Amino acid sequence: MMHPQSTGGLELRPIGTVVNDIEPGQAASWEETTSKIVIDHEWAEGLSGLEEFSHIIVLFWLDRPKTHETPLRIHPEAREDMPLVGVFATRAPVRPNPIGLTAVELLAREENVLIVRGLDAYHGTPVLDIKPYLVRGDLKSVTSTPEWLNRLWKEHDATE
Amino acid sequence: MMHPQSTGGLELRPIGTVVNDIEPGQAASWEETTSKIVIDHEWAEGLSGLEEFSHIIVLFWLDRPKTHETPLRIHPEAREDMPLVGVFATRAPVRPNPIGLTAVELLAREENVLIVRGLDAYHGTPVLDIKPYLVRGDLKSVTSTPEWLNRLWKEHDATE
Repeated sequence: MMHPQSTGGLELRPIGTVVNDIEPGQAASWEETTSKIVIDHEWAEGLSGLEEFSHIIVLFWLDRPKTHETPLRIHPEAREDMPLVGVFATRAPVRPNPIGLTAVELLAREENVLIVRGLDAYHGTPVLDIKPYLVRGDLKSVTSTPEWLNRLWKEHDATE
Repeated sequence: MMHPQSTGGLELRPIGTVVNDIEPGQAASWEETTSKIVIDHEWAEGLSGLEEFSHIIVLFWLDRPKTHETPLRIHPEAREDMPLVGVFATRAPVRPNPIGLTAVELLAREENVLIVRGLDAYHGTPVLDIKPYLVRGDLKSVTSTPEWLNRLWKEHDATE
């Protein structure tokens, strides 16, 4: 068997799994959703001290794509009234390397289980990495975003 | 040849490469470092519209580990006066899945090349994904961090 590295590939291993009650196709209010991240016992020691952070960044494998096509340009939220933009200018789950990234609130740690709020990942999603959220580096206070995104957010606010 | 998926592995492909003048072992003022991210031509169209964001998140493969051991507890910055904490409570490059994550300022896009400031990756580092930095989600304004980290940051400030 060839090692994947020799084909130019880089291999990851799941370190844990998301546990919540949200399945694909279900409407979810992700920001309010509480999930458990169950880290495999072999890695549990690596969580030591994580509970001293109020927020963490979760990397996960987007294993439930709606399609196996990976178009390079998409309409954000599949809305035709939004411009066709490059996939790297969006957080769409269908991307060349399907890694999801979400900064979440860490409510508690119970041994190898993290209890978090705001993780937009379905039940059963493989978790790849956990990083502490650092004000120095992760917090960018002065940013600018495209007009289309501000318009999208404004509409979301109006329909809430 | 077995597909890596069948072994529980998840395979990534590099989409581009970091270009700067920083090699391992060299002291670098990362925050001030300007790098180019050269995205492979086959993915270049996916960058369309990215230049409308002032900040992006770069995911990259930490391919220059100082060691091939992946201890689960480490002393931050290899300092013995820091507590032994879990690797997931740090941003140390030696971790079960060696994915680096940095939010950087996007200075410009020139076709398939992104010019960024603040990327802490060596010349030649494989790039895995580019995501827009979103104030809604990525900016956590009220966070708390451990005492040891605040102490570390204070010392860094004093020596600058």
